[in-house]
Amino acid sequence: MSVTTPAGFRAAGMAAGLKASGGPDLAIVINDGPTRTGAAVFTSNRAQANPIRWSRQALTHSDGEVRAIVLNSGGANCFTGQFGYETSALTASETAVLLGTEAATIQVCSTGLIGEGGEAFRTAILTALPLLVEAASPEGGLAAANAILTTDTHAKTTSYTSPQGWSIGGMAKGAGMLAPGLATMLVVLTTDAALTAGECDHALRAATAVTFDRLDSDGAMSTNDQVTLLASGASGVTPKEGDFEAALADVCSDLALQLLGDAEGASHNIAITVSGAASVADAVEVGRSIARNNLFKTAIFGNDPNWGRVLAAIGTTRAAFDPDNVDVTINGVRVCSKGGPDRPRGLVDLTPREVSLDINLFTGGESATIWTNDLTHDYVHENSAYSS
Amino acid sequence: MSVTTPAGFRAAGMAAGLKASGGPDLAIVINDGPTRTGAAVFTSNRAQANPIRWSRQALTHSDGEVRAIVLNSGGANCFTGQFGYETSALTASETAVLLGTEAATIQVCSTGLIGEGGEAFRTAILTALPLLVEAASPEGGLAAANAILTTDTHAKTTSYTSPQGWSIGGMAKGAGMLAPGLATMLVVLTTDAALTAGECDHALRAATAVTFDRLDSDGAMSTNDQVTLLASGASGVTPKEGDFEAALADVCSDLALQLLGDAEGASHNIAITVSGAASVADAVEVGRSIARNNLFKTAIFGNDPNWGRVLAAIGTTRAAFDPDNVDVTINGVRVCSKGGPDRPRGLVDLTPREVSLDINLFTGGESATIWTNDLTHDYVHENSAYSS
Repeated sequence: MSVTTPAGFRAAGMAAGLKASGGPDLAIVINDGPTRTGAAVFTSNRAQANPIRWSRQALTHSDGEVRAIVLNSGGANCFTGQFGYETSALTASETAVLLGTEAATIQVCSTGLIGEGGEAFRTAILTALPLLVEAASPEGGLAAANAILTTDTHAKTTSYTSPQGWSIGGMAKGAGMLAPGLATMLVVLTTDAALTAGECDHALRAATAVTFDRLDSDGAMSTNDQVTLLASGASGVTPKEGDFEAALADVCSDLALQLLGDAEGASHNIAITVSGAASVADAVEVGRSIARNNLFKTAIFGNDPNWGRVLAAIGTTRAAFDPDNVDVTINGVRVCSKGGPDRPRGLVDLTPREVSLDINLFTGGESATIWTNDLTHDYVHENSAYSS
Repeated sequence: MSVTTPAGFRAAGMAAGLKASGGPDLAIVINDGPTRTGAAVFTSNRAQANPIRWSRQALTHSDGEVRAIVLNSGGANCFTGQFGYETSALTASETAVLLGTEAATIQVCSTGLIGEGGEAFRTAILTALPLLVEAASPEGGLAAANAILTTDTHAKTTSYTSPQGWSIGGMAKGAGMLAPGLATMLVVLTTDAALTAGECDHALRAATAVTFDRLDSDGAMSTNDQVTLLASGASGVTPKEGDFEAALADVCSDLALQLLGDAEGASHNIAITVSGAASVADAVEVGRSIARNNLFKTAIFGNDPNWGRVLAAIGTTRAAFDPDNVDVTINGVRVCSKGGPDRPRGLVDLTPREVSLDINLFTGGESATIWTNDLTHDYVHENSAYSS
């Protein structure tokens, strides 16, 4: 179960010398067709890394044709100036030469420390590329997944096989900086279903909107996020209408929850479900405001069902709500009803890793779930020491 | 140097039994005139505590006349329903009877845990009020300042005396949840200058806009914040135009920096100055986005000048800027110039508690400073254990 589960794909991962640890840091996923349609969504951060700048324009120029995607850890190649942009462009053009195609059909992703991406970085990647392409095989999915990790503790992969005979594979990295609009999250999805580039784009946007976009581990939005879908058509099957979209959303949800489970230093996975909202936008805004509230997040770390902090967070939003008519339920215990204390907070058991926080706004019929983590000593430790 | 420094004021603080610790938890500041003008600014959180609801309408009904302000720690009286509102109203009316005035001239503030404010809370306050008023004296400023503390490690007071003969005194509490729009921050300012209620309101709004409103310790906005100014006119002096406004802003700045210095678990005070901005609003938005970025805040805790996280935070704003033309200077060392690496990050010494982060956006001539803290193990510890 990886990006090479669907037919028509080869992948590889290797150590190119980008990471001081000597660990694997360069990956490729190659689409051998027969079709090579693709789609991608990019970080909405206005400070965008050089690989994002490259990949966005390349996808436009190729009209949605994607032959391969090259990904590196060990350096974000962000705020590295014109030299850094040329490194992303050279990575694409060298890969294109090796595969006998156009540079515009090569997507490039990087992750690691911002500001890293100088001469040594470029040389290491360009030197390794021929070996990487040579190594690519239908068994290389897991090696690729391992080569894109940074502070992740393990590789994240998934797959789905349809009764119709087509399948979807995926890999993801990201263990911090997860936030709306995507966040240092690199995801590659592959399928052997027969899809046009437009169908890929439509399905990818629909799936990410309700999965990765609703993951908000620490509110910090990355400069390097990219989620890419590659379709080979190798199964020869065109999915029934709606089937592919539904399966892709499931695959994305699976990877999103794997990312959440491996978020830096987290000790709880928190599903914040806002129901009774006047609109989905209201539900999402309320969920995010809670997910980003450090006081709520530290309370959950301390196994403290401090529902006052939930209401204080809701109060900072523009969502339709009446502070005197809000219910808050934590792990099944309604601790606040009609904006006042309900059942004793001592009844709430917060020792399990999984936490459900359910808010009812009583202003409509819409709902949304936002996933986040608690704020822990380990989060502070990992992120205070990251670049040193 | 306290709220009783200006002539015409009495104050007191006492233990009313609200805090389990038995520490002082109830305070009063009484304006003996001859004038009793006042003004207040309240939290912009839409979830507002009962004392905020009371005080806001009382100030409107009294046309800016404020005879006294009663403040308690040991319970926020927020999300405590109609009973809680009546407790605030009863606190005001009982105080009014004791002082021979109208309830609408009594401001009420509470701080502590949300959801706390039941029968025992009300009884404790109402029982203590006669003793509190009896104890009020021109020497009671420090006792009042001590009685409003929660997780603060020490009382915050200040004063200023004008060459013209009028003075300003102040006290503040707040050691967490400091955020824009004010946040569990209770501040009382007194003056014996002769001012109308309109002049008080104008000066208070101008001063808080550039001081308390630019303090963003942890991005969490409280339900209970209030900053109140009381003017007695006891000096008989009407300040020269502009003098009072300037002095009040200085006094507020002094208290704001005292709050910052005592923020929960912080190990660095960070002054984020954004210059070269197209507007003050842009400068404030950029400053806040950095101040609220947990990755930046943990990096400073780790003495790590990780400027990439600064640029990633700027990228999430709507401010006018060009990612390829931004300078970032940390403690005097320009580590990023024109959106790329400049001087080595190793030159930055982050061991002092005071940190200056200077951003130049090169898009205009406006600037603003936002004050924040780092995100530390102690912050997580204090806030994970607060209500348990």
